[in-house]
Amino acid sequence: MNITTPTLVLDKERCIRNIEKIVKKVKGTSTEVRPHFKTHQSIEIGRWYKKYGTDKITVSSLEMASYFSEDWDDITVAFPINVLEVETINELASRIKLNLLAVGPDALYFLADNLTAQAGICIKVDVGTHRTGVNPGDTASIDRLLDIIDSSDKMYFKGFLGHAGHSYGSRSKEEILRIHEQGRSIMAVLRTHYQTRYPDLIISLGDTPTCSVATDFEGIDEIRPGNYVLYDIMQEQIGSCTYDEVAAAVACPIVAIHPERNEMIIYGGGVHFSKDSIKTDHGTSYGHIVTQDGNGWGNPIEGMYVKGLSQEHGKIAVPSDRINDYQVGGLLYILPVHSCMTADLLKVYTTTDGDKITMMNSYR
Amino acid sequence: MNITTPTLVLDKERCIRNIEKIVKKVKGTSTEVRPHFKTHQSIEIGRWYKKYGTDKITVSSLEMASYFSEDWDDITVAFPINVLEVETINELASRIKLNLLAVGPDALYFLADNLTAQAGICIKVDVGTHRTGVNPGDTASIDRLLDIIDSSDKMYFKGFLGHAGHSYGSRSKEEILRIHEQGRSIMAVLRTHYQTRYPDLIISLGDTPTCSVATDFEGIDEIRPGNYVLYDIMQEQIGSCTYDEVAAAVACPIVAIHPERNEMIIYGGGVHFSKDSIKTDHGTSYGHIVTQDGNGWGNPIEGMYVKGLSQEHGKIAVPSDRINDYQVGGLLYILPVHSCMTADLLKVYTTTDGDKITMMNSYR
Repeated sequence: MNITTPTLVLDKERCIRNIEKIVKKVKGTSTEVRPHFKTHQSIEIGRWYKKYGTDKITVSSLEMASYFSEDWDDITVAFPINVLEVETINELASRIKLNLLAVGPDALYFLADNLTAQAGICIKVDVGTHRTGVNPGDTASIDRLLDIIDSSDKMYFKGFLGHAGHSYGSRSKEEILRIHEQGRSIMAVLRTHYQTRYPDLIISLGDTPTCSVATDFEGIDEIRPGNYVLYDIMQEQIGSCTYDEVAAAVACPIVAIHPERNEMIIYGGGVHFSKDSIKTDHGTSYGHIVTQDGNGWGNPIEGMYVKGLSQEHGKIAVPSDRINDYQVGGLLYILPVHSCMTADLLKVYTTTDGDKITMMNSYR
Repeated sequence: MNITTPTLVLDKERCIRNIEKIVKKVKGTSTEVRPHFKTHQSIEIGRWYKKYGTDKITVSSLEMASYFSEDWDDITVAFPINVLEVETINELASRIKLNLLAVGPDALYFLADNLTAQAGICIKVDVGTHRTGVNPGDTASIDRLLDIIDSSDKMYFKGFLGHAGHSYGSRSKEEILRIHEQGRSIMAVLRTHYQTRYPDLIISLGDTPTCSVATDFEGIDEIRPGNYVLYDIMQEQIGSCTYDEVAAAVACPIVAIHPERNEMIIYGGGVHFSKDSIKTDHGTSYGHIVTQDGNGWGNPIEGMYVKGLSQEHGKIAVPSDRINDYQVGGLLYILPVHSCMTADLLKVYTTTDGDKITMMNSYR
């Protein structure tokens, strides 16, 4: 491997193990996996799921749906319908099974007038995150949405979809499990209420924290975790994964060493990592430095982390007994705080075997 | 203009006015402007500086130097020398006036052995930011760097370069001016100490906050502001600019409205804005919503701001007396917190006249 600039390194084995782990969890049950592909954003990585029986996916934009439609014919866009992109919606709906997300009546009225092909509609339910979605107790509003859907020959009701985004704020497995159970209860009530009218409705629920920690998915027809394909140190901190499951690291050149303050500067900044951070006992970390192992990596080094990011610079806190172990021109391997954002910025993977894997909009 | 997804809108008039403002500040003095192009990252915008006499630029990576070398033959890479990119360094040095940044002896020893063409070397001085650079009082270390430079027939000493990055943490014009004066004093001492040995050495100092606020640049041979070409609400907050100088906004589709909690959801998240934020009286803001004016925009609306960002979603706080003014399918114009990061993410400009302006790695 000839790494000269900040590079997103992928441990393919860990990645495939992560993909397998979630599939195995629901094997033999009626729960299916509709993985979210917004984290890896790669056609090639997407193909690794196929050998585990995955035949439907989730994405977070119509652009991403178009990109993945080369390979997948059943795609849910888990983002509120953007009526301004009706051309893309119609183009996709004409050739794949496209599922869209309703959060209110306005976009549905628009689609009733403007859809030219069949599309499935999921009603987004607010399971506690309060970002968007309908209040699950407000069946009058839900009925209104269902009436608009039913009045159109182009829309069909697919089911209820929830995203417990607040699970990302958890700090223990117990808390994640509590959020999982809350979501399941909300969805169970909705199913009971609507199953006579819609016997085939599905319940779609489950993100990386809940799917990583929970073992009981009864009542959920499909889970939609995404981040687990790579994981990251935020997921480790909230209890979703262990460090040795994190499948992506950023290799960054060391460009300056300041022994007088136990710091180094790397080529690797906000335009490579994004500026998500986590609190640690040592201070705010924008990434943890790990040991190197051939072209791969091991576990984080205690007390060694990215303490600051500017556009292209990263400032590294180094334990004083380690500051002499590094030299300008060497590389540091760094686990990202939020791999979805980091992958989106770096736009291409280099595997630990040295292969390049492109993603949507790869330009590097 | 047909905006359907998050779009970086450029007010060309404001942008050119900003470019002009800084040039005018130093007109008739011996101080030159070597603008930093890491903010706009665009060949086309770069050309707008030429009519104001600009003939040299600053960039923050060798990749950016290569991109701009199509148009510019005097480029300073204001980032510590990355020895791993020696091939790019030699290629650039063979055809343009390339200036590199030394922060310690290691990279200079490497260049002494590996440079194949002439390159100017600036010694980076730590003027108080403590990110990197040499301690200006440590003339023994500076002498050592100068000796390595002088021992090579490929390197020549260009001068001292400082970046008062801590000016970005200022909260008043007075504080910015104090930082400006500190930097000038440090540089004046260095010039006095070294001018006999290097009569042509230059002093390079000055970022957007200090160059926006200060009026006296005596003793500085070149200033290197960058962000001022677009400005942003962080710069407004620290006192560098007024809102009507901010030349870039992000137009985002409205996809959900929640009158019960005075919030809206836009298509526009961390992958579009980045996650820089500022504190305001109303709470943490990831962007301020402005009034719309044709294809352009006016000033921020009091109490209306981006209160949260996930990957693709932005959550907007809306004053209760305004929540009925918006509809799904409309657009919001939003001033970014940190325009450098936002432009880097959005990768292409649409002017208020509807023209597209590409930048480095534009893929949209």
